[in-house]
Amino acid sequence: MQSDNPTAAILVIGDEILSGRTREGNAHHLAQVLTATGIDLREIRVVSDDTDQIVAAVQALDSSLGGAYDLLFTSGGIGPTHDDITADAVAKAHGTRAEIDPEARALLQARCDRMGTELTPNRLRMARVPVGATLILNAVSAAPGFSIGNTHVMAGVPEVFRGMVDWLIPRLPVGRPVQSLSVEVRRGESEVAEDLLAVASEYADLSFGSYPFNDADGWGTNLVVRGLDEARVAEGMTVLKQRLGL
Amino acid sequence: MQSDNPTAAILVIGDEILSGRTREGNAHHLAQVLTATGIDLREIRVVSDDTDQIVAAVQALDSSLGGAYDLLFTSGGIGPTHDDITADAVAKAHGTRAEIDPEARALLQARCDRMGTELTPNRLRMARVPVGATLILNAVSAAPGFSIGNTHVMAGVPEVFRGMVDWLIPRLPVGRPVQSLSVEVRRGESEVAEDLLAVASEYADLSFGSYPFNDADGWGTNLVVRGLDEARVAEGMTVLKQRLGL
Repeated sequence: MQSDNPTAAILVIGDEILSGRTREGNAHHLAQVLTATGIDLREIRVVSDDTDQIVAAVQALDSSLGGAYDLLFTSGGIGPTHDDITADAVAKAHGTRAEIDPEARALLQARCDRMGTELTPNRLRMARVPVGATLILNAVSAAPGFSIGNTHVMAGVPEVFRGMVDWLIPRLPVGRPVQSLSVEVRRGESEVAEDLLAVASEYADLSFGSYPFNDADGWGTNLVVRGLDEARVAEGMTVLKQRLGL
Repeated sequence: MQSDNPTAAILVIGDEILSGRTREGNAHHLAQVLTATGIDLREIRVVSDDTDQIVAAVQALDSSLGGAYDLLFTSGGIGPTHDDITADAVAKAHGTRAEIDPEARALLQARCDRMGTELTPNRLRMARVPVGATLILNAVSAAPGFSIGNTHVMAGVPEVFRGMVDWLIPRLPVGRPVQSLSVEVRRGESEVAEDLLAVASEYADLSFGSYPFNDADGWGTNLVVRGLDEARVAEGMTVLKQRLGL
């Protein structure tokens, strides 16, 4: 399935994912949002809180730096502690440095005023963004994310990440959402492979996927037809079902 | 925290993860196993069922091909259908080709004999492994994974993946498992940042992480101390708790 949709990658930053302590969910959430929006997610990477790894990944993935994809979204590492190095690392990847942003500082100050707390140096760290970046706001936390080049940097805390996604996505160029239909069959994948290939060859403009599973009742397979045209996807699914005798 | 432990990456192969249809869980499972085993997982990548993407990722990640890590584990794309291209792509990355393996064929034939089914051409596809590879067995499915160079190729179906991990890991060189202790505080991350940094600076051989969360009771932070020596980790946690007045 080919499309002119923007392409994208997600970069998840955090030792806690790689140690197995936390099961990553932000990339899965954003993957669903991007598919519904018409942005083709092509790659996800998870790296540790390590400057060199982050810089290399941002440069490999952001097209504005010669990387592979139109858009890059990151998650994690923009909090107030010493191991939150994403702002500095993304700045470095884009050939600049992170500084206190006046607008971000004002957001944090206003939140502190409402809470009756002080804008400590640690809290103020969350106002540091790369020079030239614009802010990504959210409804949960006063601490903003930011966009620079084609890199969009968001928080790792799931509620904040989702708030930033909600704010950001409507502001991006989008394409035609991918349409899909699926059917579950109680047969092993090898029993449907031949028919699936025959229909996939006939409908080369569509994408046919088969996803085997194994549960208490034994083996089954989910068959998924994807494409940009709803009627064409429906036709592909009808022909596939007929061939399988469903 | 530095160690002499083997390093590793996981490569997940599958359009269904990138479309958001499936929430990936195999990498999370393997991350936990590797941490408990003393293998340092440094990176996870998710790519689509695309030969060029798979070849590029395998060559970037497997040290036997000049890539970055001692060990590479893959998940997905070794089933019987036309979109299962992992065996061919991994073979290509390693400069060889996939062929029917006699041992794998015998395993599949034996399973078909027991089930009273036929070893069809599609089922036989699952016996194709790169020339020079050795098999990875499992208790759930007769279809094997395989190892070639430092790349270890496993299935995407979670039950089969776990069976292959159970079989494979005891056969690999391992290091010293990372020890960790954690404590939850009902304070925002910015309120613990200064104390955390002070203790982290004092215990430079340990790794200190802070993981904020937001739930019905507001903001909290999990603090985690990691290291290779259990007594040293316990000492670091004790000092951290004292500093925080816990």
